[in-house]
Amino acid sequence: MWNKLIEFEEAEKLIKNTIKEITATETVHLKNALGRVLAKDVLAHLDIPSFNRATMDGFALYSKDTEGASSNKPVILNIKGKIWPGTPLEIKLNSGECVKIATGATLPKGVDAVVKQEDVEVEANKIFITEPLKQWENVGLKGGDIKRGELLLGRGTLITPGRIAGLAACGIAELLVYKKPNLLIVASGSEIQSVGKEPLMPGKVFDINSYTILSLLTLNGACGVIYSPYLKDTIEDFIKVFLEAEKYDGIIFSGSTSIGERDLLAKAILEVGGEVIFHGVNTMPGKPTLFGKYKETIIWGLPGFPTSCFMIAYTMLVPALRKVGHLEPFPVRREMLPMGEALKLPSLPTKFITVNVKDKKVFPVFKGSSMISSFLSAQGYVVIPRGVSQVEKDSLVEVIFLQ
Amino acid sequence: MWNKLIEFEEAEKLIKNTIKEITATETVHLKNALGRVLAKDVLAHLDIPSFNRATMDGFALYSKDTEGASSNKPVILNIKGKIWPGTPLEIKLNSGECVKIATGATLPKGVDAVVKQEDVEVEANKIFITEPLKQWENVGLKGGDIKRGELLLGRGTLITPGRIAGLAACGIAELLVYKKPNLLIVASGSEIQSVGKEPLMPGKVFDINSYTILSLLTLNGACGVIYSPYLKDTIEDFIKVFLEAEKYDGIIFSGSTSIGERDLLAKAILEVGGEVIFHGVNTMPGKPTLFGKYKETIIWGLPGFPTSCFMIAYTMLVPALRKVGHLEPFPVRREMLPMGEALKLPSLPTKFITVNVKDKKVFPVFKGSSMISSFLSAQGYVVIPRGVSQVEKDSLVEVIFLQ
Repeated sequence: MWNKLIEFEEAEKLIKNTIKEITATETVHLKNALGRVLAKDVLAHLDIPSFNRATMDGFALYSKDTEGASSNKPVILNIKGKIWPGTPLEIKLNSGECVKIATGATLPKGVDAVVKQEDVEVEANKIFITEPLKQWENVGLKGGDIKRGELLLGRGTLITPGRIAGLAACGIAELLVYKKPNLLIVASGSEIQSVGKEPLMPGKVFDINSYTILSLLTLNGACGVIYSPYLKDTIEDFIKVFLEAEKYDGIIFSGSTSIGERDLLAKAILEVGGEVIFHGVNTMPGKPTLFGKYKETIIWGLPGFPTSCFMIAYTMLVPALRKVGHLEPFPVRREMLPMGEALKLPSLPTKFITVNVKDKKVFPVFKGSSMISSFLSAQGYVVIPRGVSQVEKDSLVEVIFLQ
Repeated sequence: MWNKLIEFEEAEKLIKNTIKEITATETVHLKNALGRVLAKDVLAHLDIPSFNRATMDGFALYSKDTEGASSNKPVILNIKGKIWPGTPLEIKLNSGECVKIATGATLPKGVDAVVKQEDVEVEANKIFITEPLKQWENVGLKGGDIKRGELLLGRGTLITPGRIAGLAACGIAELLVYKKPNLLIVASGSEIQSVGKEPLMPGKVFDINSYTILSLLTLNGACGVIYSPYLKDTIEDFIKVFLEAEKYDGIIFSGSTSIGERDLLAKAILEVGGEVIFHGVNTMPGKPTLFGKYKETIIWGLPGFPTSCFMIAYTMLVPALRKVGHLEPFPVRREMLPMGEALKLPSLPTKFITVNVKDKKVFPVFKGSSMISSFLSAQGYVVIPRGVSQVEKDSLVEVIFLQ
């Protein structure tokens, strides 16, 4: 039977030691860069600001001219024109002169301060200043924010909205990013029928796992292709899949991993010369999980039962995918909450129990590996460690909320 | 000047009272349904399981036949063939007979239990049972999980990976969902230059706001189109945009909302017969924020300074967008943490300060509205309420982590 069951932690370690971060890259436009990961350092192409500019609407002037200004003895400057942002700069200012300037506009050469509009009296073509200005007051200095040539964002950085701002500021329209892991999703079992317009045939079940796996890939920075047609329970069908292995970073099978006559995946992997790294994990659900490798392609054998498939995808596949795609672990919400009812479970395996939170109390919704309805309402899951067979009502458990 | 500044909470209320949840719908395939919101109730099309099925590999039998079975007096049953999942069912069982059955396969009519493979001795064509089986032991009852006709998921439900499982189980390939809010993104200012292959012209700045806004829309279930070309500082340019208003649920302007000669947006809205609901909010940054309406289209006037634009997009636009798109508020991570340094700020406005967390302490990264570099490292922000002008070192603040 399952004479080689390994513990969950051992499975995690074997996965970690086998997977490799993606090295292939592609170029994407800034518009499509959200959520991608930089494949090389990005340096600032230019100084930000790229010129000395006004940070307020007002009048640009020489700060020296305002020395000693007071209400009793205001400094009076002649207004010499107006500067708008984005307009070519042709004004040269002499001492005793100022120029009207709008926020964001370039300061004339040598000019080193801007007095705010609301801080001066304007009369005819003159302004009256009653307080001295400091050098660079209300001025954004060239390179004062970001210096040309400095490291803007390092290789491996995730592109967030804030970082898009920094890249746009430097005019960087195209980015070299890591390719997304690309996986083939293969459902197996003669009972599987495609979700579509045909009504369900007697004895058949609709394909659930391909769609949940696809959505988990999408949520975690990977792409998936659903293999068609579904595999029948023949070794030939399984072997055929490996002809396409080279095109993918991984193949995710679901079903046909249980010990017994339908244990076709392990046989097929060995038949094509691949490696079964583990087969059988001491978890509930998820015992028949398989992990292996064929040439450079990682092989996942997830259990056929949808709830089992889902929990193992969550707890083993997703963390691995994110690592391959250079992404941080998903920032899941975790909360310590009291159990709303007692729970009795088999002692030996590591248990993943889907739960709901009502009135700040935790209730299991897991009703057996084949229970689809537990999906519809589950908000998260709790991990009950191996060796623990009983959880008392009101004892604290850590709820890991689902994506 | 700003004689009509309103408080942040008042702005929130005015926004909430003006926006309307989207009613337009579209049909999407299950493959593309992740993150969408159901626009009508979905009922189960069929019973799940849709037949009585084995939940274990073993032998299907009549539970009555096993009454009184014990190690001393095993019940012996004749094996009559084998049933695989997905294969047509032609076997009829008599009392005293059993049939080999694989997990997921259909039970013959009347048969009401499955004994696990590992719990029996098999000899020649017979099995030996040493313990009685309960009725429906190791059987998934037809409709036992989900009943045909029951409400699977209600209108307004967000499609998550778990719910995709439930929909797939019922063979529902196409879903009626709400359309995503569709917004036009319009940058203005004669100084704005498109991010692209051209080097930056003197006195110009690259367009930052369009890209950050676009990414925030994408993250929050909306779509955005960047308007081209950028608006110059003329009222005619602004008025032209409103010709396209009908095609969009909202228009997001950035820039040209400050009081002064460049306050063109408010003028243009009034000119075309729209409504300015508020203009000027007592926040820092974000004072020149404008909110209005033109026919059925919501008009946003975000500040031109990128950091101001970003914070107002985060604190006002994103919550509104999610409401329009029938999405729950974004489940942001919040954490109470001590300040790593003291902070002095103007008392009057509500202040949004971008921050970083180092060694579990909070440090401001906000260095002024024009500082792009504060984007590159900001992990979150804190809200310093109006009336508070000083935050002591080590006092606790709530960090709201950015998406």
